Amino acid sequence: MRQLRKPYLLFLGDVDLKSDAKTAFGLRDWCRNDVMGEWSLPAATVSLDLPRHSPSQAAALGAGSIVVGVAAVGGVLPAHWLPELEAALDAGMDVVSGLHSRLTSFPSLVQAAQRGGGRLHDVRHSDQVFAAGTGRKRSGQRVLTVGTDCALGKKYTALALTRALTARGVPATFRATGQTGIMIAGAGVAVDAVIADFIAGAAEALSPDNAADHWDVIEGQGALFHPAYAGVTLGLVHGSQPDALVLCHDPSRDTVEGYPDCPIPDLQHAIDRYLEAARLTNRQVRCVGVSINSSSLTDAQWQAYAASVELKLGLPVVDPMRGGVDALADALLAR
Amino acid sequence: MRQLRKPYLLFLGDVDLKSDAKTAFGLRDWCRNDVMGEWSLPAATVSLDLPRHSPSQAAALGAGSIVVGVAAVGGVLPAHWLPELEAALDAGMDVVSGLHSRLTSFPSLVQAAQRGGGRLHDVRHSDQVFAAGTGRKRSGQRVLTVGTDCALGKKYTALALTRALTARGVPATFRATGQTGIMIAGAGVAVDAVIADFIAGAAEALSPDNAADHWDVIEGQGALFHPAYAGVTLGLVHGSQPDALVLCHDPSRDTVEGYPDCPIPDLQHAIDRYLEAARLTNRQVRCVGVSINSSSLTDAQWQAYAASVELKLGLPVVDPMRGGVDALADALLAR
Repeated sequence: MRQLRKPYLLFLGDVDLKSDAKTAFGLRDWCRNDVMGEWSLPAATVSLDLPRHSPSQAAALGAGSIVVGVAAVGGVLPAHWLPELEAALDAGMDVVSGLHSRLTSFPSLVQAAQRGGGRLHDVRHSDQVFAAGTGRKRSGQRVLTVGTDCALGKKYTALALTRALTARGVPATFRATGQTGIMIAGAGVAVDAVIADFIAGAAEALSPDNAADHWDVIEGQGALFHPAYAGVTLGLVHGSQPDALVLCHDPSRDTVEGYPDCPIPDLQHAIDRYLEAARLTNRQVRCVGVSINSSSLTDAQWQAYAASVELKLGLPVVDPMRGGVDALADALLAR
Repeated sequence: MRQLRKPYLLFLGDVDLKSDAKTAFGLRDWCRNDVMGEWSLPAATVSLDLPRHSPSQAAALGAGSIVVGVAAVGGVLPAHWLPELEAALDAGMDVVSGLHSRLTSFPSLVQAAQRGGGRLHDVRHSDQVFAAGTGRKRSGQRVLTVGTDCALGKKYTALALTRALTARGVPATFRATGQTGIMIAGAGVAVDAVIADFIAGAAEALSPDNAADHWDVIEGQGALFHPAYAGVTLGLVHGSQPDALVLCHDPSRDTVEGYPDCPIPDLQHAIDRYLEAARLTNRQVRCVGVSINSSSLTDAQWQAYAASVELKLGLPVVDPMRGGVDALADALLAR
């Protein structure tokens, strides 16, 4: 599993669109205690409203890594951002990036890392070797967020559920499977970046044996009904051996995003298919609830929608952004 | 897609177990016209009964590649085999290997390849970049072999079916997804070696648009019910967009090989699950028959078993080794 060095200095480059700084805002919101501050170039117009520290100041205050918190055009790291990252490396920090272009492809960064003794983390890519899945049942409890599509709240739901469990004194760990999640957790496996033969094995490595009452809350990826990414999803389901599933859904979508010929399945059908897939490695698996991304609905619409889905499925229905996920935590802990 | 240069010289090293030369025998049996001869070290005790040519003789006769046709202990290429491979490279040939250890990790081979202008092909590994699956429907017909487990005849069935179609004058191409298949076909994609995000995309690239009456016969991988490899299987199903499936099964197995807690599903259940998965990208998909690896059965047992499965499923049941696959070809072409 990849391990990152906290606390973070969040680097915004010369960003001028808030939406391009999604990663930085996510880190601020989900691991505020691990974020020391922000840094950006003079042309930047977006701020996180955090203390500003230069790389060398941050290093002196004990920062472990500078994190590229913005999406650059085409996923390419602009050359004029490099001096700030080199300064962080020269001060002994690591650099963390989720961009397509690899930090290790920039000789000046590799050299600065060698000078400073820091590491370059390309969290979108995987450099770790995993074994094939074994199917061996592991100790501890696991809940996995699954979805009717990509990008509709699986990470957010898992983070919120981890918080809700921790607030009740239940030992729980968020297990990250995507780049932003890995930055938030400071550890994890980008399962979509591993060699196909080892998807389930990587998922097994992500949530190792644990105390009997401990919950791993595992960030889901993709969807079983997605024509490009279902293989990743299925391997993650099998390797996670979940005791519980939470289905995530966005009622504004009729078809898989970017695949207009691919309808989003009925929720009960989706739950049945996920449970069947998960039973292969955990016959006790159950679905404990549904997490809705209801941003397209008015309050009144949301109330009506949630009530109708609850009635139909007989499961708690939440939106983490509208009332939180306590009902999911209740269902998870009810035995 | 990887492309290999035929004809082949099959290299046996110093093999003394016929079972270790499975790849070489497979190539001899399935692409005899592409095999110029064999070569081995003096200590070898296994022969393919083919003409013996040294690498330089073979190159003079027009050989394109020397193929490592034996499994070495631990998948590692023994150092004392290198001089023969270097001789082939110096004579202008390529080297093809399916071993775990990469040809490119041996400096003497890399240097010899540079001298001779040949290429080093590690068919177990993937060096190609694929796009994510698009789900776009492609022209031409496709049949995919799927299975209740790994290693029970999916490649063999696909090869036999390709032969049966070709014998009838039906345009058909075997599409290889594993290393031995790629060597036989001289082209293909090792789908279990691609980055997880691109399994379906790689499968799409493997069987591009084709003439309306052309059949791609695609070698399946893994099994939907396999706790380690189901992700590869599902991505391959989705990207292949099969019009037809053939289910492969070995009745001597009660559980997935190496996974004693994982029962092999009922055949009808397996067919239903595969059809459901395949419908995501091709709603017209149908199962045209079952291919049995009946090596554990006597002739009488096989007759009784085949009859009972045919009756139960209402589908043709064949063993390619016992009577061939004509019934599958009939079912495929029946409309």
